[in-house]
Amino acid sequence: MTRTRFHQGLDDLKQKLLAMGGLAEQAVERAVRAYQTRDLSLCQVVLRDESKINAAERDVDEMSIDLLAMQQPMAIDLRFIVACIKINADLERVGDQAVNIAERVMDLATRPDSTLEVDIPRMAQFSISMVRDALNAFLTADVNLAQTVLERDDLVDNMNREIFEAVDLAMSQSNSNHRTLLDTLIVARNLERVADHATNIAEDVIFWVRGADVRHHAQS
Amino acid sequence: MTRTRFHQGLDDLKQKLLAMGGLAEQAVERAVRAYQTRDLSLCQVVLRDESKINAAERDVDEMSIDLLAMQQPMAIDLRFIVACIKINADLERVGDQAVNIAERVMDLATRPDSTLEVDIPRMAQFSISMVRDALNAFLTADVNLAQTVLERDDLVDNMNREIFEAVDLAMSQSNSNHRTLLDTLIVARNLERVADHATNIAEDVIFWVRGADVRHHAQS
Repeated sequence: MTRTRFHQGLDDLKQKLLAMGGLAEQAVERAVRAYQTRDLSLCQVVLRDESKINAAERDVDEMSIDLLAMQQPMAIDLRFIVACIKINADLERVGDQAVNIAERVMDLATRPDSTLEVDIPRMAQFSISMVRDALNAFLTADVNLAQTVLERDDLVDNMNREIFEAVDLAMSQSNSNHRTLLDTLIVARNLERVADHATNIAEDVIFWVRGADVRHHAQS
Repeated sequence: MTRTRFHQGLDDLKQKLLAMGGLAEQAVERAVRAYQTRDLSLCQVVLRDESKINAAERDVDEMSIDLLAMQQPMAIDLRFIVACIKINADLERVGDQAVNIAERVMDLATRPDSTLEVDIPRMAQFSISMVRDALNAFLTADVNLAQTVLERDDLVDNMNREIFEAVDLAMSQSNSNHRTLLDTLIVARNLERVADHATNIAEDVIFWVRGADVRHHAQS
């Protein structure tokens, strides 16, 4: 096992993790599109593809452990592998949120439309862009981009609170479509969790790059 | 660095993680007690102690990385350290759920009591016992106990669904105390997430112990 083969292994791990990120992102996008269009067949696709994400999670874990076992990694590589293990767990849970949203859409499909003035698609776009940027920060080791993801988390929390208050207000005015409102509320919370996971991923990128930087400066 | 010192390090890591588990469990217990008694000072304690849990998370991560860097661990030790890193992330998020519950209690404290027939304390006890048993399974490397935690997850999901339907029904009958109902619904979902994290921890215990067993059998 040469250093070169080890670094090839690190690169394979990165690619595998990014591919998994793509699957998780796609699942959320599909669930949100299903929400907008009430498309039940798209919900089924999201439910079906969950097992792909779970399989990818196991692969990434095994690749990470194999790399840790192969040779004594340098500090920067060690932090990279640990970051991959943590990001992996978060991506799998992003996929879980897509499934949760799809399940709410299946419940919503049988209910009357709500006239609630909440912009779920906007919140979804915002949360998905946080996942995408966290993964881009991981790809390019970009601490500044990761930092912008952290800063956006408060905005998603605010959107979530606004939707909670809007649902509360709508319910105080009428209880005719409360089930639709409840489902909408849950979808908003699921999207907030997607953003939480994006934030965790961004923190892991910073942990990896900054930890390495600190060490680099100490040696110079 | 001798093997003995390395194993001392593994033991310190385990103790540190269990202590962190104790903090997270305690935070959920306090938040639930605050829910039952509408005790706002207890909510403040939960909010204040979140930083302790976050600090413990950082310590466990650093201890894990130091151990990985110190020597080339054997497969079983490697899986143990990786399991610690993953369990650590879940415990921190159990603490987050306690904070979320405390925030709902602070909202509830200003509202009239609900007459909703849902047993949040029962669901809480159930979820907390899953965390406790997952940590005990970790302490004693007990795959069977970890397995029982996995099996209980469906029961918590059912409780969560029952509470959703109970809230839905109560709302269809009246919209006078819908805010209380919404808060109760969110608390139930927070508890379901606590159980999810317990399930993740149990899976990590199985991954650690079984992985080692598999390897052991392959060599024998």
